[in-house]
Amino acid sequence: MELFRTNAEINKWRDERWREGKTIGFVPTMGFLHRGHLALMEEAMRRSEQVVVSIFVNPTQFSPGEDLEQYPRDLDRDLKLCHELGVHVVFAPAVEEMYPPGFQTRVEVQHLTQHLCGLYRSDFFSGVTLVVTKLFCLVRPHLAFFGEKDFQQLVVVRRLSKDLNLGVEVIAHPTVRESDGLAMSSRNTYLSEEERRSALSLSLSLLEARKMVAEGELRADVLVQRAEMMIEAEPHTRIQYLQVVDEETMTDLTAVTPAAVMAMAVFVGQARLIDNMRLWPDSS
Amino acid sequence: MELFRTNAEINKWRDERWREGKTIGFVPTMGFLHRGHLALMEEAMRRSEQVVVSIFVNPTQFSPGEDLEQYPRDLDRDLKLCHELGVHVVFAPAVEEMYPPGFQTRVEVQHLTQHLCGLYRSDFFSGVTLVVTKLFCLVRPHLAFFGEKDFQQLVVVRRLSKDLNLGVEVIAHPTVRESDGLAMSSRNTYLSEEERRSALSLSLSLLEARKMVAEGELRADVLVQRAEMMIEAEPHTRIQYLQVVDEETMTDLTAVTPAAVMAMAVFVGQARLIDNMRLWPDSS
Repeated sequence: MELFRTNAEINKWRDERWREGKTIGFVPTMGFLHRGHLALMEEAMRRSEQVVVSIFVNPTQFSPGEDLEQYPRDLDRDLKLCHELGVHVVFAPAVEEMYPPGFQTRVEVQHLTQHLCGLYRSDFFSGVTLVVTKLFCLVRPHLAFFGEKDFQQLVVVRRLSKDLNLGVEVIAHPTVRESDGLAMSSRNTYLSEEERRSALSLSLSLLEARKMVAEGELRADVLVQRAEMMIEAEPHTRIQYLQVVDEETMTDLTAVTPAAVMAMAVFVGQARLIDNMRLWPDSS
Repeated sequence: MELFRTNAEINKWRDERWREGKTIGFVPTMGFLHRGHLALMEEAMRRSEQVVVSIFVNPTQFSPGEDLEQYPRDLDRDLKLCHELGVHVVFAPAVEEMYPPGFQTRVEVQHLTQHLCGLYRSDFFSGVTLVVTKLFCLVRPHLAFFGEKDFQQLVVVRRLSKDLNLGVEVIAHPTVRESDGLAMSSRNTYLSEEERRSALSLSLSLLEARKMVAEGELRADVLVQRAEMMIEAEPHTRIQYLQVVDEETMTDLTAVTPAAVMAMAVFVGQARLIDNMRLWPDSS
């Protein structure tokens, strides 16, 4: 496995692979890898001849006052995990390599980002679309792998790749969960034991909504109220948003359709957690 | 020579050339080719193994009320010229191929565009940076050739390529002029015979400024006043801006330096013409 720190290194490697006609799979991460990331990396290994994992805590996707400084980091452990999985390249640039003095370019997906997380984290999506554009251009992968836990991000990045002709097929991977249902997230490390128990209400309320839909309840407001009640019943929780939206457009639905996703962001203690689930029976 | 109309075609061609390790040179144009474009194409032929010319009147870089509809077009003549020069590929996509329904991404270079043309053509640079990002991603050239006539555009595109890691070296080519000094532009076709005579005052005032600098006059305001006087003395002219700026930052200079450029946009009749020149003695 090779570890690259500079754009010049990853570009040189990429040009050689393109020359050889190899399929490049790419898993962009902010590190502190958990089983969700590993599942993406395993799928990338299955579907591509060469796999690149990037590890970069991207400052432009954090708003002032968010957890950029506290965000957990453990590069040595991450490298060990990548190596064990057979990843070919880890790209872990310094912030100054990605954003040198004089940097002044923005990339924005306009409409899809005006919903859900985009309403509450003003810099988040423009930071994501900027860094993903840069990483896609640096790595020039054929395939890139994103988890459905960050469901809006997935749709935004797919739109970005298409709109800018980045030439990357964006592959979605189902959310990986702890055995009790909590969606894997590097931010779960922020939770105390008691908060960890409260956080279970996110996935439980999603499962409850799915069950209600399977039993014939299609009214979004009824589903949302029930889910809110379940979450608010737990200590340390504060709902930021909880909505039923169309998975293509991110706009609110009043009644559940086959494209309906229940999506939420909930503070549990200091941790801002997100989760989502398709509601239609038999959808994955 | 091949003519491609779709992204799929140019992508396939590009991937084959990357596989072969060929150097790709790229000349993006809005068509209606003149000797300025041909000079770019000739330099591209000299410096690259494969040359792509794009012909696309990009609607996103025109503001409402500008000359999108009237902009001159002659694809048959353009193709003939490209063929004669030995260009390998012309890429001439339809507007719907570049901006299909649902398109919603913006690309912006923030500071460099807040000067000169950027102050008067609100959509221009975001349109340019968007289409150039898309074209660079579609063609994946090693080199791209831009004329110094569009001097601010050149600096903006160079910044863009660097900031987004587009992997394209942006090559500047000196402004090509008619024998009497008028900078080549597709928009010169808008000029009546009388306006054409008035338009000469742009290049003449730039030459006068250079002469004054060579003789020791370094005060920007004196140079600007003299140039304005020469242009305003001609019928049908209306100055939009006329400034002495630093060629790296686009910011105003009070005194001429080796990086000083006099840049102007002047309406002559209905035609908005731009021109610029370095002022330092012996600069090109």
